[in-house]
Amino acid sequence: MNTLANDIRALTFDVFGTVVDWRSSIIGEGRALQQRLGAAGGAPADWPALADAWRAGYFSTMAQVTRGELAPDNVDGLHRLILDRLLPRFGLGHLPEAERDHLNRAWHRLAPWPDSVAGLTRLRSRYVTATLSNGNVALLVNMAKHAGLPWDCVLSAELVGRFKPDLEVYRTAARWLGFEPGQVMMVAAHPFDLAAAQRAGLKTAYIPRPDERGPGGPMEPVGDTHFDIVAPDLGALATQLGIA
Amino acid sequence: MNTLANDIRALTFDVFGTVVDWRSSIIGEGRALQQRLGAAGGAPADWPALADAWRAGYFSTMAQVTRGELAPDNVDGLHRLILDRLLPRFGLGHLPEAERDHLNRAWHRLAPWPDSVAGLTRLRSRYVTATLSNGNVALLVNMAKHAGLPWDCVLSAELVGRFKPDLEVYRTAARWLGFEPGQVMMVAAHPFDLAAAQRAGLKTAYIPRPDERGPGGPMEPVGDTHFDIVAPDLGALATQLGIA
Repeated sequence: MNTLANDIRALTFDVFGTVVDWRSSIIGEGRALQQRLGAAGGAPADWPALADAWRAGYFSTMAQVTRGELAPDNVDGLHRLILDRLLPRFGLGHLPEAERDHLNRAWHRLAPWPDSVAGLTRLRSRYVTATLSNGNVALLVNMAKHAGLPWDCVLSAELVGRFKPDLEVYRTAARWLGFEPGQVMMVAAHPFDLAAAQRAGLKTAYIPRPDERGPGGPMEPVGDTHFDIVAPDLGALATQLGIA
Repeated sequence: MNTLANDIRALTFDVFGTVVDWRSSIIGEGRALQQRLGAAGGAPADWPALADAWRAGYFSTMAQVTRGELAPDNVDGLHRLILDRLLPRFGLGHLPEAERDHLNRAWHRLAPWPDSVAGLTRLRSRYVTATLSNGNVALLVNMAKHAGLPWDCVLSAELVGRFKPDLEVYRTAARWLGFEPGQVMMVAAHPFDLAAAQRAGLKTAYIPRPDERGPGGPMEPVGDTHFDIVAPDLGALATQLGIA
């Protein structure tokens, strides 16, 4: 472990699910929105199901963009496209434009997992820390300001013009940070993301987040990828890397 | 001023000369390097002249890259190219590789002007604050860590693939930050940078740094560009924008 801790110079972080709890945040924002609107908000929607469908739509629309079946757009744009499709199915087709825009920007206001800010602060004391998310730059910057996430640098697939898990995203991030791929460790709650980072030459830290898709919710199978580190949260990652 | 302060949402900052004092830092690093090397360092070089020549070479090599006369490279690469040309002329042709690399990275360790950290901290309390420098991402990230510059986001011409004052750099930065160009204010000590930002639709804040090129050194003429704000330092800029 000491060798690994000395070899790496930068950590790049997946964000949705790894650093922030998107599901609870979206459910909370949705319920608060309906409460604020009162009778005009309509009957309480199934926000957990809407949050899950929204997240699923995020992956499917990114895949459509990658295959050339959907016009390129940033994640704010994709989130809005999916939201507009979902709202009628959840009895919320009446939501006016201003409320849709506010709800779409809930992704800019996601709450960190309880360990994230303290863990990142420790990790940043030794390493360059950067986001490496498919979320667009504005989303990530606003989220960092809102949640107090102490990034050294906000990197996004938007800047590369491709979405993860395209290997070019990981390689380009390492180059921009001034390091060889092997000097950079990708930190994520998702094996598919880490497997791609590893193919691009990065080191990997797997942070399982069993509650990402709700208590008892499904988790992505780990498969046969070997991770350099497995840690239950970002504080434990710092400890495993020898940071006090 | 209140209207302007409310209209803008983000500030993008030129860095070399505007936020950090490159000249004193380079001179100090050079002298420290020779002192550390002792007799092996050779006779004391004219570091102020070397710093000025290095900085001049930065502009001329960027122009060569833009005209297609020099292979594209990031600013670390250009700085090194210039340094290797300059060292023999300053009696330092004997410097070994490790020392050249260390000296080249002095640009990652530039010291902020005395007002920079406190001023940026105040400005960041209301606005999104981002670098918008021709310096490459790694240089800007390392500098921010070294100097404690509290950026929300590190943006660089490197990410756009063109150098300032290409208008595309300013427009792309505004788009990545999620704002219209008119919601972003470029902050710089250099009228040529602000004039281009203004042509790209950004607001402008001119921070004259009369000591940038040494006490009594030359300053770029202001010309006939009208700036939205002129302030002597970043703290005064925050005050003019109504930030306590």
